[in-house]
Amino acid sequence: MYGIIATWRMALEGITKADAMLKEGSNAKDAIETAIRDVEDFEFYKSVGYGGLPNEEMEVELDAAFMDGDTLDVGCVGAIKDFANPVSIARALSKEPVNNFLVGAGAEKYAHRHGFERKNMLTERAKIHYHNRVKETSADSELKPYSGHDTVGMVCVDADAHMTSATSTSGLFMKHAGRVGDSPVSGSGFYVDSKVGGASATGLGEDVMKGCVSYEIVRLMKEGKTPQEACEIAVQSFDQELKERRGKAGDMSLIAMNNKGEWGCATNIEGFSFAVATRDLKPTVYLVKFDENGKQYFEEASQEWMDNYMKTRIAPLVRK
Amino acid sequence: MYGIIATWRMALEGITKADAMLKEGSNAKDAIETAIRDVEDFEFYKSVGYGGLPNEEMEVELDAAFMDGDTLDVGCVGAIKDFANPVSIARALSKEPVNNFLVGAGAEKYAHRHGFERKNMLTERAKIHYHNRVKETSADSELKPYSGHDTVGMVCVDADAHMTSATSTSGLFMKHAGRVGDSPVSGSGFYVDSKVGGASATGLGEDVMKGCVSYEIVRLMKEGKTPQEACEIAVQSFDQELKERRGKAGDMSLIAMNNKGEWGCATNIEGFSFAVATRDLKPTVYLVKFDENGKQYFEEASQEWMDNYMKTRIAPLVRK
Repeated sequence: MYGIIATWRMALEGITKADAMLKEGSNAKDAIETAIRDVEDFEFYKSVGYGGLPNEEMEVELDAAFMDGDTLDVGCVGAIKDFANPVSIARALSKEPVNNFLVGAGAEKYAHRHGFERKNMLTERAKIHYHNRVKETSADSELKPYSGHDTVGMVCVDADAHMTSATSTSGLFMKHAGRVGDSPVSGSGFYVDSKVGGASATGLGEDVMKGCVSYEIVRLMKEGKTPQEACEIAVQSFDQELKERRGKAGDMSLIAMNNKGEWGCATNIEGFSFAVATRDLKPTVYLVKFDENGKQYFEEASQEWMDNYMKTRIAPLVRK
Repeated sequence: MYGIIATWRMALEGITKADAMLKEGSNAKDAIETAIRDVEDFEFYKSVGYGGLPNEEMEVELDAAFMDGDTLDVGCVGAIKDFANPVSIARALSKEPVNNFLVGAGAEKYAHRHGFERKNMLTERAKIHYHNRVKETSADSELKPYSGHDTVGMVCVDADAHMTSATSTSGLFMKHAGRVGDSPVSGSGFYVDSKVGGASATGLGEDVMKGCVSYEIVRLMKEGKTPQEACEIAVQSFDQELKERRGKAGDMSLIAMNNKGEWGCATNIEGFSFAVATRDLKPTVYLVKFDENGKQYFEEASQEWMDNYMKTRIAPLVRK
């Protein structure tokens, strides 16, 4: 068996490439890196890589991670600027003997020395978003972080049952300079163990890291839960903990896959989508819906939904 | 009941102050912050705060975290320079609605704006260590990170059963600029839940974060394990996992306390010490020893050991 699962519709083109690679015998490391890079490179996705929305100083700062489920190697970058593919830097860092998690200017030095591609990640479109947001909030005393935080997070298993997980994000729009979310935080934004499976998160990183939710899902799978059971148990129980203690819980959507290519997803928000492909399932986008009892179910995205999705992503944007 | 436990002998003076505060009814937040600040301020501890050893560019970069076990609020700084008390910045960040984890220049901006004390954290003594290390390794093609990485990590419970955890470290000596270890990584360097207990780590951060070891210990306590059982199970099993997959496991020493003030410790290294105080136990330093079967036990540090410890810490250092 082989397969790959990812947060959000935006991952579809990436996992389609990865699926083709896996079919040809590629390993889970190359497949997942290719898939994440594809999302990073597409300028119309405003929460990952090129075209990602900037921080409060109008600078795009990026977080990413890469984990090898065989060795448990972890590589992470936080708040890195001006590099095209943070996930590739994270992968390189995962192979270093130490210094696996680098942030800010230090991460940029490493990436420079290792020849990674420089790129100004701030697009004209992202600048319009920034200016419009400043205008909308000019009556307030300070800028408020935007509620959007659509990390791409993936889990992959190859035909030899090797597993990987990886993430990439520009984080909260209008975040403080230097803010790091859960995406490069092991056990929170991602976790994978080839003996079991992997999980990855998107949502409010500040809340996800209060519960190490990706690690918890992998642990539940290790206890014998299916990926779907593990996601539901972890997300629902932690959502309840947060609401009980804090009166509210941030957005939290988790995807998981085990080493047999079985997969699952759970979320505490309306409107979550994910993309998945396995040997037995062509690359497919599912929308997460809730029935009248609050029970979550998945519905394959219709062609109309897909057309509308891309139309709204690339629609002209007007500066206010 | 009340109590506080900390990694390493260096925490003794800090937890003694915290113990006195807890006795007088102080809360776990103020007590743990006071204890960690005390370690940060003492210039002869070369792995935490002022006097901490620098990175490969001879700059002292500090990591710290603060977690509130009632709300699960987490605040963290990574790779921050030139501030006296990183743990206090982490505590302030834990109260922000978002942007709880800040790194590098962004963390410094936040600390500046919020009036935290500026301090050049590089001491003359640390510079001698740096120069001597450069000299020792000049035959090598590049600097190797020093194996010392003595984070101070603590868990505290106050008389009202509120719990906190906090960490502070200068990280690996000769680390790359921007390197972040496990100390500001939730679930790895620290974790606390007032319903259960807390745990904190010192050791090779790059390996600790492969296993979310602090979170795992709290989880085991939640299942009913004592702090001692939880520490031993988590450390031994993860140490074995790393050795099996990687041929070796980095240094890893964990301390834990539950909300009844019961405590525990486990390590995979020789020479680990920890400090603990509770309502029923005066501030005490224990040395972790191993019997002929490899079974770990604790021995109270003798006066001779204590005298020798401080003597070697403050002994004059000669530039080679």
